[in-house]
Amino acid sequence: MMRQAGRYLPEYREIRAGISSFLEFCYTPDAAVEVTLQPLRRFGFDASILFADILVIPDALGQRVTFKEGEGPVLEPIRDAKGLEILNVDGVIDHLAPIFETLRRLSVEIPKTTGLIGFAGSPWTVAVYMVEGKGRTECERARAWAYRNPDEFSKLMDVLVDATSRYLIEQVKAGAEVLQLFDSWAGVLSVSQFKSLVIEPTRRIVENVKASAPDVPIIGFPRQGGVMIPEYVKQTGVDGVSLDHSVPLDWAMREIPETCVLQGNLDNRVLVVGGDALDRAVDDILEQTRDRRFVFNLGHGIVPQTPPENVGRVIDRIRGKR
Amino acid sequence: MMRQAGRYLPEYREIRAGISSFLEFCYTPDAAVEVTLQPLRRFGFDASILFADILVIPDALGQRVTFKEGEGPVLEPIRDAKGLEILNVDGVIDHLAPIFETLRRLSVEIPKTTGLIGFAGSPWTVAVYMVEGKGRTECERARAWAYRNPDEFSKLMDVLVDATSRYLIEQVKAGAEVLQLFDSWAGVLSVSQFKSLVIEPTRRIVENVKASAPDVPIIGFPRQGGVMIPEYVKQTGVDGVSLDHSVPLDWAMREIPETCVLQGNLDNRVLVVGGDALDRAVDDILEQTRDRRFVFNLGHGIVPQTPPENVGRVIDRIRGKR
Repeated sequence: MMRQAGRYLPEYREIRAGISSFLEFCYTPDAAVEVTLQPLRRFGFDASILFADILVIPDALGQRVTFKEGEGPVLEPIRDAKGLEILNVDGVIDHLAPIFETLRRLSVEIPKTTGLIGFAGSPWTVAVYMVEGKGRTECERARAWAYRNPDEFSKLMDVLVDATSRYLIEQVKAGAEVLQLFDSWAGVLSVSQFKSLVIEPTRRIVENVKASAPDVPIIGFPRQGGVMIPEYVKQTGVDGVSLDHSVPLDWAMREIPETCVLQGNLDNRVLVVGGDALDRAVDDILEQTRDRRFVFNLGHGIVPQTPPENVGRVIDRIRGKR
Repeated sequence: MMRQAGRYLPEYREIRAGISSFLEFCYTPDAAVEVTLQPLRRFGFDASILFADILVIPDALGQRVTFKEGEGPVLEPIRDAKGLEILNVDGVIDHLAPIFETLRRLSVEIPKTTGLIGFAGSPWTVAVYMVEGKGRTECERARAWAYRNPDEFSKLMDVLVDATSRYLIEQVKAGAEVLQLFDSWAGVLSVSQFKSLVIEPTRRIVENVKASAPDVPIIGFPRQGGVMIPEYVKQTGVDGVSLDHSVPLDWAMREIPETCVLQGNLDNRVLVVGGDALDRAVDDILEQTRDRRFVFNLGHGIVPQTPPENVGRVIDRIRGKR
């Protein structure tokens, strides 16, 4: 469940309150292991996903990243070729050592039958934060830069492909059994930029990771990718794809080959509402995907005001029906 | 070009500066006629679109609507059945009389060969502003209300279908030759809500308007509707559909019958950037739509920082090639 550990759980908020900076939280194995395990204890999910953040990559590359209470991440933005000069790929793996330690401990601590999922942000989405300085609905500066000077923007994407590939390969060495790439801002792009900034960098990361870890499944999540999702699957070579709640499942099952596992699609707002509306939404997904391998999941991140009992209700309903 | 008159034009900003409230601007035929004509004078567009705002409908229904400088619209939000009681459909046409006056004057003032387009917001998008109190990326309150109490939310949609149908029929009587329905927030919905909150209310409006004005083409714009767009076209009966920049044109031409005219698709950010990137994007659209009726347009609203000369560059390029 995206994101499985987090602000909807009181036991998470308690740990979080004891650590001043969010990045320090991600880099403290004791804390990161504990909050990764919390939802497993509560709900017994079939898989656990590493607790970390997609912005550890710009942080590890040398960009200044902070998280402000109630505001989300704030980065010292990079807006030109000169800004790119501060980025240094060579230090990334050392900088992220605590995250690999978290994974090593998790691979011992979680039940043998529970999957361990590592993850990273996709280059486009990470680049949006790096260029805009924060999450921005329109991603206008990043989109404009990529139109104005595609060669310069490619340098940023190259750095991110390289750093992210190394990061994911190291996650596998530390115990990750599945990897997921989050491209939360994929949906804002024109078709031509979706091809060059979402599909192509993702394809290169999949190629790099597969060269080192051919058997580790990779799940892509081009959020709001809509019509482009089948081409994304075909060109990138991902083994699974996470679908946001705007994607009709019958269409996805027709357009995406069975070799690619489907995941997601539950509206995070119906999970907040709960009750009959939630039951109907869960049943609808189960019914539609009856004849296909499917990973039940949200279509986008769980929101803090989600009542934890609604998550339990979903789990019970799925288990009751299979 | 969406929106054809607006903050990217200095002559618009000059008129705007002389009127204190944005709604008053929309309700002042002298001003609204003038700014509708400004882009025609500058660029000689093939069609002119009425200058107004989608939020005149909640205003006419009795909800408090104001526009704050730099913040956009602010509404006294409606969040429950009790809040719906203030809405009164009967006064809508009288309240909007100045807009019909603007259309009557425009139908005389614009060249005979220039089309005159009227418009309204679609019920879902207008409802988002009415419920959230402002534009909100996630539209979470409106989505949650519709899940929690579909019957209650339907009452709001019924009011909007009724008011919008009357408003558009009256626009036709006042001289509008084409109508466009803007559903800017269509893309945030799950598949089931897209069907009930975007497709179904739009279908009813098209039905109502066609009963009164069967020959007036209606263009729908379910922004970010992605995979759902062909079903939207089929179910609603719109004569044309505006495509945001995320929609691959080759796919749209395959999936949407030729009886429906396609429109849009140019990225508003490449229009800001201009130069070769803009030329390539324009050529790409012209090339792909060579064998199909197509209305050249932006995929979403023009942004204030767009250099007017880039708009001229697009017009010249299209005219040079046809």
